[in-house]
Parts: sequence; C-alpha cells; structure tokens
Amino acid sequence: MSFYDATVPAFLQILGSLSGILTKAEAHCKAKNIQPEVLLGARLYPDMLPLSRQIQLVCDFAAKGCARLTGSEVPSTPDTEKSFEELRQRLAKTIDYVKTFKPAQFDGADSRDVTFPTGPDKTMTLKGQQFLSNVAFPNFYFHAATAHGILRHNGVEIGKRDFLGVS
Amino acid sequence: MSFYDATVPAFLQILGSLSGILTKAEAHCKAKNIQPEVLLGARLYPDMLPLSRQIQLVCDFAAKGCARLTGSEVPSTPDTEKSFEELRQRLAKTIDYVKTFKPAQFDGADSRDVTFPTGPDKTMTLKGQQFLSNVAFPNFYFHAATAHGILRHNGVEIGKRDFLGVS
Repeated sequence: MSFYDATVPAFLQILGSLSGILTKAEAHCKAKNIQPEVLLGARLYPDMLPLSRQIQLVCDFAAKGCARLTGSEVPSTPDTEKSFEELRQRLAKTIDYVKTFKPAQFDGADSRDVTFPTGPDKTMTLKGQQFLSNVAFPNFYFHAATAHGILRHNGVEIGKRDFLGVS
Repeated sequence: MSFYDATVPAFLQILGSLSGILTKAEAHCKAKNIQPEVLLGARLYPDMLPLSRQIQLVCDFAAKGCARLTGSEVPSTPDTEKSFEELRQRLAKTIDYVKTFKPAQFDGADSRDVTFPTGPDKTMTLKGQQFLSNVAFPNFYFHAATAHGILRHNGVEIGKRDFLGVS
C-alpha cells in the first residue's frame, strides 16, 4: 500500500457520508416543518461554529491537506453556501478535487516537509506523515463528527453508521 | 516513514489530549458545583451514549485497532469507570498499552488481512490499511470528538486546541 492509500480513501469516505447525512437532515426539516437555515445555523454552544461552517471546514481540511502533502497549489474556496443543496455541492466539488490526485503525487510525501499556517502570522513545518496524522486527520474528523453531533442533538435520525457511510 | 508511524502517533495524540480535557471537565464541576456523575452521564441526545462510554470506546478503538493490525491478542477491558480519575486511568493504561507496540510489528500490516467483528455474529475482512483508514480511525475520532462535543455543549471551557492537544 502507498501513502496515497493512507490519505485519499479516508477523506473520500467521510466527504461522501456527510453528503448523505445532509440529505437526511434536509428531509428532517421538511418532515418537521423546520426552516433549513435554523438547522444550518445550529451550534452545540453559542461560541461554537454552526453546522454549515463545520461542513466547509471538513472540505477545507481534505482539499488543502491533499494539496499541501503533494506540493500542489492550495485551493481557496469562498464559504458562501446557504442551503443543504449548496453544501452538498461543496462536498461533491471537494470529492472531485480529491479524486484528481494520482498515487504517484503522494510517493515520498510522508517524509517531505509540509509547511502550513497555524495563525495569521505563524507557520509550522512537519514531515508529511506527521502533518497527516496529527493535523489534517484530527481536524478533518473533528469537524465531521461535530457536524454529526449538531444534527444528532437536534433530533435528526442518524447514527454512527451514517457517519461511517455504511448505512 | 512506516505503517507504525501512520498508526501509533495518531492514537497517542488524542488519548493524551482527552486526559487533559477530562481534567478541565473535572475542574469545571468543582467550580460550578456540578456533581461529576452528571457530566459523566451527559449525552447529546437521549439515545446517544454518555460521556464516560465515549471515552471507553475511544480507548477500545485504539487498543483493539493496534492489536488487530499486528495480529496480537485483542484486549478486553471491562467498562467499569465511574469517575474522571478512573477514566483518566483508563486512558493512561491504553496509552501504556499502545506504547508497547514496536514499529516492526506493523511492518507489512497495511497489506495483511484484518478480520474484525461488525455485529454479534458477523465479521468483515479488510486489508490493514483499509481497516485503519475506514474503520479504526473514523470510529476512534468519532467518539473522541463526540466526547469533546458533550463537554462543550455543557459549558466546559475547552476548544479544538484541547482536542488536538496543543493548548
């Protein structure tokens, strides 16, 4: 197996499963007569980010993670999504982008330096494997699971199988 | 880098950060005169698992994940923890266990078959890399981030930096 196999399939699994979760959330809104923007703006605590931003961050950590690991131009996507459909499109575009990477682009990337921002004026440099294991993955899964938690807390009938994409 | 590097450091980062998060949660209970068992039993929704069980599952996915990937005997730990201190001990024991593995035990494990239970009478077999990427990691991070979300939702002053262990 290759470093590509350690990276891309993990991102694709959750990007795909979140799309299914958003479809269930949208159906929940229709069934319960909930305005979609209420759920899209829901948070687990007032100073936490809302559902829509959690999804955007999941997309960013996958797309930018692949770009940084392969030394590609890091994409910048405006966070303009205002509906479940637009967020699903964001996920779909991210999936398409992640799928453009070829295994060879990841060859040796685990041992290459990756420099990434850690604040407005700060950067950090790690080896690719450490960047993936200790930065990209935990951030990616953190926002994905928080999105799941927000919807679960609001009564949407989903579970871990939806998060894993196996339901 | 090796398959060990793709596996063990990721588990250790979050097992350690959760211990710090539990310490902050315990201090929050003291400061706000909250009975610890209330927070340990908190859930994001009535049919979700409580905080204590989320921590136990994080430990299990790390410990059993390493065992399955290396063909070691899969440990079974009774879920008896009833306090923040006992949960921190569970995390510490899991960290000690994960640290017993040597890099050589993971050599070739990415391409070896891993068979694991998916229900009371069902198993699934995947290559080690797929087991790690699509089963062990997403389950591990799911329960860790859900534990964080439960505490955040209950007003404990933690954030993503605590989750990442960089605060």
